[in-house]
Amino acid sequence: MKYCYGVDVGGTTVKMGLFEETGGILEKWEIVTRTEEEGKAILPDIAASVLEKTKKHGLDKSDIIGIGVGVPAPVTADGIVNGTANLGWTYKEVKRELEELTGIKSEIGNDANVAALGEMWKGGGAGEKNMVMITLGTGVGGGVIINGKVITGEHGAGGEVGHICVNYDEPDTCGCGNHGCLEQYASATGVVRLAKKRLAQETKETVLNKDSVSAKDVFDAVKAGDAVAIEVAEEFGRYLASGLVNLAVIADPAVFVIGGGVSRAGEVLIPFIQKPYKEKAFFANKEIEFRLATLGNDAGICGAAKMVLDA
Amino acid sequence: MKYCYGVDVGGTTVKMGLFEETGGILEKWEIVTRTEEEGKAILPDIAASVLEKTKKHGLDKSDIIGIGVGVPAPVTADGIVNGTANLGWTYKEVKRELEELTGIKSEIGNDANVAALGEMWKGGGAGEKNMVMITLGTGVGGGVIINGKVITGEHGAGGEVGHICVNYDEPDTCGCGNHGCLEQYASATGVVRLAKKRLAQETKETVLNKDSVSAKDVFDAVKAGDAVAIEVAEEFGRYLASGLVNLAVIADPAVFVIGGGVSRAGEVLIPFIQKPYKEKAFFANKEIEFRLATLGNDAGICGAAKMVLDA
Repeated sequence: MKYCYGVDVGGTTVKMGLFEETGGILEKWEIVTRTEEEGKAILPDIAASVLEKTKKHGLDKSDIIGIGVGVPAPVTADGIVNGTANLGWTYKEVKRELEELTGIKSEIGNDANVAALGEMWKGGGAGEKNMVMITLGTGVGGGVIINGKVITGEHGAGGEVGHICVNYDEPDTCGCGNHGCLEQYASATGVVRLAKKRLAQETKETVLNKDSVSAKDVFDAVKAGDAVAIEVAEEFGRYLASGLVNLAVIADPAVFVIGGGVSRAGEVLIPFIQKPYKEKAFFANKEIEFRLATLGNDAGICGAAKMVLDA
Repeated sequence: MKYCYGVDVGGTTVKMGLFEETGGILEKWEIVTRTEEEGKAILPDIAASVLEKTKKHGLDKSDIIGIGVGVPAPVTADGIVNGTANLGWTYKEVKRELEELTGIKSEIGNDANVAALGEMWKGGGAGEKNMVMITLGTGVGGGVIINGKVITGEHGAGGEVGHICVNYDEPDTCGCGNHGCLEQYASATGVVRLAKKRLAQETKETVLNKDSVSAKDVFDAVKAGDAVAIEVAEEFGRYLASGLVNLAVIADPAVFVIGGGVSRAGEVLIPFIQKPYKEKAFFANKEIEFRLATLGNDAGICGAAKMVLDA
């Protein structure tokens, strides 16, 4: 049996897993992400942890196929990052540095792309080879998988599905500087934005509080039958469906997998997305299946492991 | 030396080419597309022509690597077509039928996808492996190539870039039944539509005739400095740029190759597309290159040949 590591680097913690090549997880753990001084400790910390766990499990470096790493930034095919919002890194040759620190082959990918690969391997997309994952978190990320391979793109910006334009008239600005990005409506922050806009001028009774509302509040209220929350969910679903319609005519996947914090609302979410999707989709794409992600926080480490196994 | 055939099936003629495996063209010719009786003669006509040319050139079937065929319809990975607008075919197992008729391995693809492959092999995208081709003809088609492979998609509808939505407020209906598809603005027909709308309410002097205007008239007038034609071209360019921005965040190609009848206007076209593209593109995608297609009517036969060489 050979082994590999799956590593998911976040802004506060680094999630790590030691995997059997057949997919079994030997151990999962976390270390702190030390972002100070341009995040210079992050890769040495990961390397030290990998080497320590290898020793602890009585393994030799030659037993390790590689280390897969997902990072919250665009990553080039050579494993280079040109800047991150959360880790402090500017230009960083992640693959080269980690290989030098560990002596173990490493593969680096964008975290949302890597999570998509995880869901295809053992989650909501299992059994498919053409799949799009949409991660509805603080932002909207994703991964577009064609014939089992993630689209990385020429500039490491493949599958940046949060920045599909779904409203050419939006006056508010997205974090990326554009207007009308899917992320402005379908992220947790986006759902709050839609809710606050509606609550500011709403006259109907609602359990939602316009001064303090979260995406979870909205979907909890939907489950309780709150009419205003349902209108917010419908608006969220229409925008998300518009993005998926555009994705479908380009990538034509078998399945859309919906993940991220917002997707914890559960199955209640699906009809709000699928109904407007079916109405607007190109005729050849109407039957694409909708599934929820199933791996939760483990999608990243699973996908990172799969990435290095496939390399 | 081995050989292959590249076949491009259109609504009125079938273009055919006999290629050396190294890319040289031995002979190019056309036959009539007989669409009557559900197009039942089309494949037998192609098969007869292939067998005749093989004999004429003193070749044996064993010298032929295969027959690549582009057809104007979505095509599944198994070479099946589920209906065409122009050929009369309903459900048709194109690959199986052509292989039975010829005894030669055949590969079938969508014509716009196949043309993209041709431009990547020996045209505007030569040297690239991540490329998007946009074909601006009667409609808008395209091909999305990732790592040298065309995205076919689960339902044969990958790269249907003409049906990206670029205007969520469009009242007019696209041929597909939706509203605001790129095809409604950037096809030859779309350019005429934009021109007629503008001319109906235009007070400025223009050489364009509101009762009889073609896409070629518009771009000829642009070259002559006609202010109204330039406004039409700017509108065309803005919509096309919106579609390309959405394509870029998904596929992140190195280059956009612009082909089809409208692209015969030449280099004058590029700034009308590239300027709004750069304004609206996601930061990581702003530097994608724009090139014109160079193979003209030969893109289809070249790409069809390449498809069977790569299979």
